[in-house]
Amino acid sequence: MKPTLTSLYQPRSVAIIGASRSPQKVGHQLLKNLLADGFSGPVYPVNPQAHRLLDLPCYPTVTALPRVPDLAVIATPAPLVLPILTEATAIGIPSAVIISAGFAEANLAGQTRQRELVTFLKTAAINVLGPNSLGVLNPDHHLNAAFGPPLPPSGPVWLISQSGALITSVFDWAKATGVGFTAAFSLGNRVDVNENHLLSLAARDHRTRVIAVYLESLSQPTTFFAQASTITPHKPIILLKGGQSPQGYQASASHTAALASNPVLLQAFAQQTQVILADTIETWLSGIHLATLYPKIKGLNLGLVTNAGGPAVVAADHAATQHLSLPSFSSQTVRRLHRLGVTVVHNPLDVLGDAPPSLIAEATKIGLADPAIDQLLTIITPQTMTQPIRTARLLSQLKVKKPFLVSFMGGTQMAGAISLCRRQKLPHFDYPHDALKALSVLAHYHQGRSLTLPFPSPHGSHLSPAKRPPLPHEPAALNLETAFSLLQAYGFILPKYRLIDHLEALPETLNLVGRPAVMKSAALALAHKRAVGAIALDLMTTSHARQAFRRLSKFHPQVLVQQTIHAPLELLLGARRDPDFGPFVVVGLGGSYANQFPNRTYLFSPVSVMAVRRILASSALMPFFRQAHLNLNHLVQAILKLQTLLLDYPAIADLEINPLMGTPAKLYAVDVKLNLTLSEAV
Amino acid sequence: MKPTLTSLYQPRSVAIIGASRSPQKVGHQLLKNLLADGFSGPVYPVNPQAHRLLDLPCYPTVTALPRVPDLAVIATPAPLVLPILTEATAIGIPSAVIISAGFAEANLAGQTRQRELVTFLKTAAINVLGPNSLGVLNPDHHLNAAFGPPLPPSGPVWLISQSGALITSVFDWAKATGVGFTAAFSLGNRVDVNENHLLSLAARDHRTRVIAVYLESLSQPTTFFAQASTITPHKPIILLKGGQSPQGYQASASHTAALASNPVLLQAFAQQTQVILADTIETWLSGIHLATLYPKIKGLNLGLVTNAGGPAVVAADHAATQHLSLPSFSSQTVRRLHRLGVTVVHNPLDVLGDAPPSLIAEATKIGLADPAIDQLLTIITPQTMTQPIRTARLLSQLKVKKPFLVSFMGGTQMAGAISLCRRQKLPHFDYPHDALKALSVLAHYHQGRSLTLPFPSPHGSHLSPAKRPPLPHEPAALNLETAFSLLQAYGFILPKYRLIDHLEALPETLNLVGRPAVMKSAALALAHKRAVGAIALDLMTTSHARQAFRRLSKFHPQVLVQQTIHAPLELLLGARRDPDFGPFVVVGLGGSYANQFPNRTYLFSPVSVMAVRRILASSALMPFFRQAHLNLNHLVQAILKLQTLLLDYPAIADLEINPLMGTPAKLYAVDVKLNLTLSEAV
Repeated sequence: MKPTLTSLYQPRSVAIIGASRSPQKVGHQLLKNLLADGFSGPVYPVNPQAHRLLDLPCYPTVTALPRVPDLAVIATPAPLVLPILTEATAIGIPSAVIISAGFAEANLAGQTRQRELVTFLKTAAINVLGPNSLGVLNPDHHLNAAFGPPLPPSGPVWLISQSGALITSVFDWAKATGVGFTAAFSLGNRVDVNENHLLSLAARDHRTRVIAVYLESLSQPTTFFAQASTITPHKPIILLKGGQSPQGYQASASHTAALASNPVLLQAFAQQTQVILADTIETWLSGIHLATLYPKIKGLNLGLVTNAGGPAVVAADHAATQHLSLPSFSSQTVRRLHRLGVTVVHNPLDVLGDAPPSLIAEATKIGLADPAIDQLLTIITPQTMTQPIRTARLLSQLKVKKPFLVSFMGGTQMAGAISLCRRQKLPHFDYPHDALKALSVLAHYHQGRSLTLPFPSPHGSHLSPAKRPPLPHEPAALNLETAFSLLQAYGFILPKYRLIDHLEALPETLNLVGRPAVMKSAALALAHKRAVGAIALDLMTTSHARQAFRRLSKFHPQVLVQQTIHAPLELLLGARRDPDFGPFVVVGLGGSYANQFPNRTYLFSPVSVMAVRRILASSALMPFFRQAHLNLNHLVQAILKLQTLLLDYPAIADLEINPLMGTPAKLYAVDVKLNLTLSEAV
Repeated sequence: MKPTLTSLYQPRSVAIIGASRSPQKVGHQLLKNLLADGFSGPVYPVNPQAHRLLDLPCYPTVTALPRVPDLAVIATPAPLVLPILTEATAIGIPSAVIISAGFAEANLAGQTRQRELVTFLKTAAINVLGPNSLGVLNPDHHLNAAFGPPLPPSGPVWLISQSGALITSVFDWAKATGVGFTAAFSLGNRVDVNENHLLSLAARDHRTRVIAVYLESLSQPTTFFAQASTITPHKPIILLKGGQSPQGYQASASHTAALASNPVLLQAFAQQTQVILADTIETWLSGIHLATLYPKIKGLNLGLVTNAGGPAVVAADHAATQHLSLPSFSSQTVRRLHRLGVTVVHNPLDVLGDAPPSLIAEATKIGLADPAIDQLLTIITPQTMTQPIRTARLLSQLKVKKPFLVSFMGGTQMAGAISLCRRQKLPHFDYPHDALKALSVLAHYHQGRSLTLPFPSPHGSHLSPAKRPPLPHEPAALNLETAFSLLQAYGFILPKYRLIDHLEALPETLNLVGRPAVMKSAALALAHKRAVGAIALDLMTTSHARQAFRRLSKFHPQVLVQQTIHAPLELLLGARRDPDFGPFVVVGLGGSYANQFPNRTYLFSPVSVMAVRRILASSALMPFFRQAHLNLNHLVQAILKLQTLLLDYPAIADLEINPLMGTPAKLYAVDVKLNLTLSEAV
């Protein structure tokens, strides 16, 4: 049984093990940081070679401590870590941070050392962050148990990072922008405490309003997203994921020894659970910044105010690509702007190059007051009359509740205005694109967060075991007949078909399925049937069918004879288990374009009917569904049936219906591929 | 006959018409700017109310001037502009810039005024920039004939902008980054001189190495891209196009009264002619900046050096999405880095958080010297040992020819280092994403520029008029028979077909085209035939065919009976005339996915066989072609045939072969739509 994690970031007392007198050493800097940032509880340096360190009594070992501290910070050479941790556990220290490097990230010996640590921690009653961690910080608690920068200001952001170096960079950025933190954790090599434990802590920490996460790999993606789905309706989780590309992953592997996971699935899972996935460091930081300033964003309607036509036109373009609307100003706003002397009123509102600071500020104020506007960006270029600093001062004095951003676009003349914005906590962006991207990310999160449905959803729908067709004991014994009967048992509609293994059955079979018929090899695992000639179409006569049978039976003794289905849309409906992301259903375009079309929609299981509807509604496949007049209810039902099938049969590794032919009246499962997991096959 | 344009930006003497003594007036600021920036030739203020202005003798009218100036800068109220211009032309002034506003951008009266100006300029022997222009600037010539900021430094950039406000913003940015200019032109309302005239000047200006263009509309897109295709092999043209989205266009229309053009076609035309199309102001400016620093970029191989693992992993991800490679360092580089004390050598190269400035700089130097590396980005985060300013100093002292960028990622601790980089002209980016995007844009331009083929290409291929099937005199008389015979005359392969208008012809026709047959309505303009039921497939028996005939003849008396073609790929091959971009051929996916799949490839005509090959090779459709084992030569030939047809028949507005069925052996033109232009129909 692990002690509570609160001791990790709200300890009442801290021991620094490996504390040192040499200023170059990590063990010295840790002690210095802790004291310099004013930790108020007892601090115990541990070092057998010293009696006093930085004016504190020093202890030779953990067991020699006068009291059991809440937190042990370990910065000794790597080989000493496990023995120390064993002692620490024995005396009942509830939490430890291992700063020491020299584990899995280093070399073979380090990997062995890390395995021993993991084995020990399986049963040990202690929480461990690290090894190879920068540390843990909690400004409200004056806790700087880290080998890095001074404490950042206190504020609403909870930061979890798999890169320690990124934390120092974020803190330096935060100092310039005024963003504050509840806590920050450097995960290191994650032998014990991982992002999921810390996410769950963040959910319960009432001061935390924004959760920022940098990860190169997810410890247990399904746990992460399951937790996220219950947090995102209340607090945004803004995730930056490194190692998404093969070369980024390679870079990450050499750095954190983490495994790659599928970036497409990650993105889909984030979408299903409303986790904000930032695609650049800049969007991540801007998203964090704006989320701390604006806990609510009402909608997607943007106002633009500017003294420069060109940049406003470009900004309007970016608003469009970011799915923000530019509504017209209300008639009252138009009247107020006219009274101000602005004769041509549009959104973007161009107050023209000769506008003095007061006009820019007044126009901005009027625009922000318009009920049609949810958020506003003012773009200023350095024209003759502009006076950037005065403009920045007036803008920063506006009383604003809606998201309000500024962009002083230029260089030397704008530097003073930009500094002033920073000091006054008015969010400034060098260019409109970055501003609108960050705004859009958050505005869309606020649109969607009330619709987030908990994952996993309560999943009551199972087929009674008696009605489930049995799977063969050997994966090799699997055949098309079994696959088809599975689909039928779960309510899929199949075209009329017969499986035959001798020529004589042909005439009767053709009569039964109807002409023209389709014939295919019944080889279940045969991919690209069309390309290799394992399909014959438009068969009307028995003699053509005979020729086809002879050809097809070379692939597999059984041949499938099937009714021809014409449909305006060929879909792919698949069910799979991903080693990282668990079971899911995937919908995409089927037929010959299946592999080229990047637009697929993923539904991680178990997913509720409500969630399926919501996810399909925002799917990139919607135009295809609409054009084919597909009945969306049929597709929703098909997805749920396939999900039930997948969850009922743990032995199924993947199953792919392709094509699933979509007509306005029905969906036909025309062909299927099926693979069993080797371990689970019964 | 217009005088030479040189007088517009290299005048020997300048008259300021509407010069004023009141410091608030544009006419005062123009005169002041011209004098303050040291224009060395004679300057003539013109104002009937003054005798002297800023210590210069002032003249009552243009006709009273002691000499004919090369350039007249006009800043009078709008109604006076045309009379003054008439006088200026009469005395032989070769060029004028109209600063005055109050034309088409203002109101109805202004629109009338602008029409009168255009009519006058059709025959007048004078070049006019504007009206509503900020002016023209030429630092080498000490010419600041603009109502804006002081002259920027001299340098290699030629700037053409449809937004005056953007120019002042760009100059302020340039001051901070050290970018210099050969000339800058504010286009204004373009009654006469437009971007094409200025592009042609830039091509001949030997000091100009980089051409930067901001446009909200293109005066004559085909002229622009035709000129561009001869310039881009020598000098990059970096274009920012405002008004790409409907809402951006609307913003632009109220600002420059310009017409929208198709953004997809614009992008395709830019690609065909190697014009760099920037998608944000930031990429535009960064591209300009790097292009001035690095006239050559050898390849796409990127080196990354960092003191922070996380940001390097994210940067590696961005490199991948920007199509930059991260090659391994050569063995010599690895040895040199080992000698430096860096034990783990990968690309990205992580010198770890405790690296002092000298180590970061040395590792960077070694990385840049590696022949496998074409360009390098060093990312620095503020770790305990970093000393940002010292690191920046050492990095800026490296002797570098390859593109070398830095990113000091943080906030307050990094400000000094960033300033130092700016002073030392070492390109700095706040985040790796922006750096890599700008690098990638330029590196890809350098990869492609030697392959740019002149547009329009010499087009020798015509069908002799005798062999061209005639088009009907009335568009309404056009039918499928004519469309098919056109395709056949130009060498397209059609499935066997017959057009019938009575039931009795069916049995013989079925025998002729073969069974199963396809029947379709012959209505040429009928869209979505499949959706409305105007197609019958798999017809084997005469009785089924009869039923189909009865149904289909309701759409149109003629019914098409056609051989069934099966092919792994259905394409769309279209030919069109765009009012802006002229004739072009388009290739896309056909059949039911035609309207959804966004990836189409455009070839602006006349295009050479070489250019078709090059453009297809980089087409997003290549995976489809490959999967279907399409013979690319067949497609190249089909594109050229369709282009010849389009150019031979100016009466054709658009023609679309859909589907064009692609098999490894042949391409079949299965169905076709054809529309004539109303004006050109013969």
